[in-house]
Amino acid sequence: MSQRLDTAAAAAMLANADRIHILTHASPDGDTLGCGFALCRALRQLGKQAQVLCPDAVPAKFSYMLLPDQDFEPAFYCSVDVASPHLLGRYEPLAEKVVLAIDHHANRTDFGENLLLKDYGAAAMLIFELLQEMAVTIDADIAACLYTGLSTDTGCFKYTNTSPLTHRMAAQLMELGAPAGMINREMFDTKSRARLALEREALASMQFAFGDRCAVMALPLSVQQAVGADEGDMDGIAPLPRQIEGVWVGITLREKESGTYKVSVRTDEHIDAAAVCARLGGGGHARAAGCTVTASLTDATAQLLDAVVAVVPEIAL
Amino acid sequence: MSQRLDTAAAAAMLANADRIHILTHASPDGDTLGCGFALCRALRQLGKQAQVLCPDAVPAKFSYMLLPDQDFEPAFYCSVDVASPHLLGRYEPLAEKVVLAIDHHANRTDFGENLLLKDYGAAAMLIFELLQEMAVTIDADIAACLYTGLSTDTGCFKYTNTSPLTHRMAAQLMELGAPAGMINREMFDTKSRARLALEREALASMQFAFGDRCAVMALPLSVQQAVGADEGDMDGIAPLPRQIEGVWVGITLREKESGTYKVSVRTDEHIDAAAVCARLGGGGHARAAGCTVTASLTDATAQLLDAVVAVVPEIAL
Repeated sequence: MSQRLDTAAAAAMLANADRIHILTHASPDGDTLGCGFALCRALRQLGKQAQVLCPDAVPAKFSYMLLPDQDFEPAFYCSVDVASPHLLGRYEPLAEKVVLAIDHHANRTDFGENLLLKDYGAAAMLIFELLQEMAVTIDADIAACLYTGLSTDTGCFKYTNTSPLTHRMAAQLMELGAPAGMINREMFDTKSRARLALEREALASMQFAFGDRCAVMALPLSVQQAVGADEGDMDGIAPLPRQIEGVWVGITLREKESGTYKVSVRTDEHIDAAAVCARLGGGGHARAAGCTVTASLTDATAQLLDAVVAVVPEIAL
Repeated sequence: MSQRLDTAAAAAMLANADRIHILTHASPDGDTLGCGFALCRALRQLGKQAQVLCPDAVPAKFSYMLLPDQDFEPAFYCSVDVASPHLLGRYEPLAEKVVLAIDHHANRTDFGENLLLKDYGAAAMLIFELLQEMAVTIDADIAACLYTGLSTDTGCFKYTNTSPLTHRMAAQLMELGAPAGMINREMFDTKSRARLALEREALASMQFAFGDRCAVMALPLSVQQAVGADEGDMDGIAPLPRQIEGVWVGITLREKESGTYKVSVRTDEHIDAAAVCARLGGGGHARAAGCTVTASLTDATAQLLDAVVAVVPEIAL
């Protein structure tokens, strides 16, 4: 069981550390990368050796956060926004070496010798507090990383995980030089031609169950290849089914490799998305969770509908 | 020429007024309605008679803002978020009676005896300051109206018109009871089945000009009718063309009545959208503007491309 630390204790621990590897989760998003690179920049500013370890390639749209690599023998492992060892992907074996896990997922799988956890909308809010505690100078580059985390994990301040504190931190980060307009345009308002075609196909694939309370969208490999969509084009497509009027639960099945679907479940207040995904070996938040299912598209869909009805029997009434 | 007032002077003017009609613009959006109903609630709280006059029907998604009608002979006309008399629609004749215009459009068509104008992202930010000046108690209902204005006019804090002040006001309004999650879900995350079909058709209609720097999307009446889309389903569809990678200017032509197109122009930093629309008798902001064109779809599109190239000749190079 991890030892819980407060922000000051975590700051003190990092102040005494050096040669630090910062682990992000696989299929990296703006929050895990924003946390990783903000912390890495801060640690380097303090004269330490630090390096972000991301299990997968960083999508091009996040390239403004990147730093030159530093080559050193790590003496301290820290994870940011990683809710479970298996989310470390190819770095999963490093989970047992993690001395400090920094996370905002309330129902995480415990790992890490020490844990800094607050139920914030974005893990980057925690890093912002941590860097202030460490007396780091938050320059425009660090502010850009942190703002990216805040903005992407809250759907640009749209989701219910946005608090007054999220807004106040966003205001501070803008004043510290975060180029909010550029970041949000990149994250939310830029679509490739391939993405456009992908959305058209995704909308056409939409099917409904339980009297239209459940919407299911499928993105088979064949469609992804036909429109020429890459990893980055997939980002932010998962929320679409849940946005339809009257839908309690929206499910997106995206074929990652032949016969294996990465599933995203988004819900309204009727259904706990994490509970649905837990039944299939996944997890996440109450309104947004995920799992991986290896099956035909028909079987995978059936397994998900079974999981939904097991969690909320009244959806089928 | 209107006399410019500061917030305190505008507050004093309203404090001395009674039997107040508040004019919103036609095709009402969240900002004009948020301003209108926040101000109306505040004036009634101060014991005055006040009524919002909206030239068009209020879309159902804004129904949480509505108030019971009050029937009285108006003695004071005020406009909120109305950039030009013709945007008053069927109430355009009342423009000359407006004693106080409250607006945030820097290049507006002058009208109104007095003018309270600040270049804020949302007119609701002005109303928030005004109500604080008037010592109104900002209850949860007023906060909901104001938050709606802030959120809708800034694309949920996504557009470059969002400032640190916008975020700080959003934080305050949440603390005053604005149900931000519900409002944003209604405004940004709820799509009817008709809207879904409309988006599919709109994406399929997308055409490109000037080496893909200009994207044009058309929504003819026939398509709107085929998918069963109503006024509310059109909302927020205009930004789509500009979101495509590499696009400087996105144009949406929506047929309002046979042969008349309501045109929305969205641009990046290369092009002044207001300048493009001004050439066709319209206006607006630098990044988002509009006009109305009566012509066939082909001719209307040609007129718009001509206007674009007249404003930014280098787009055709």
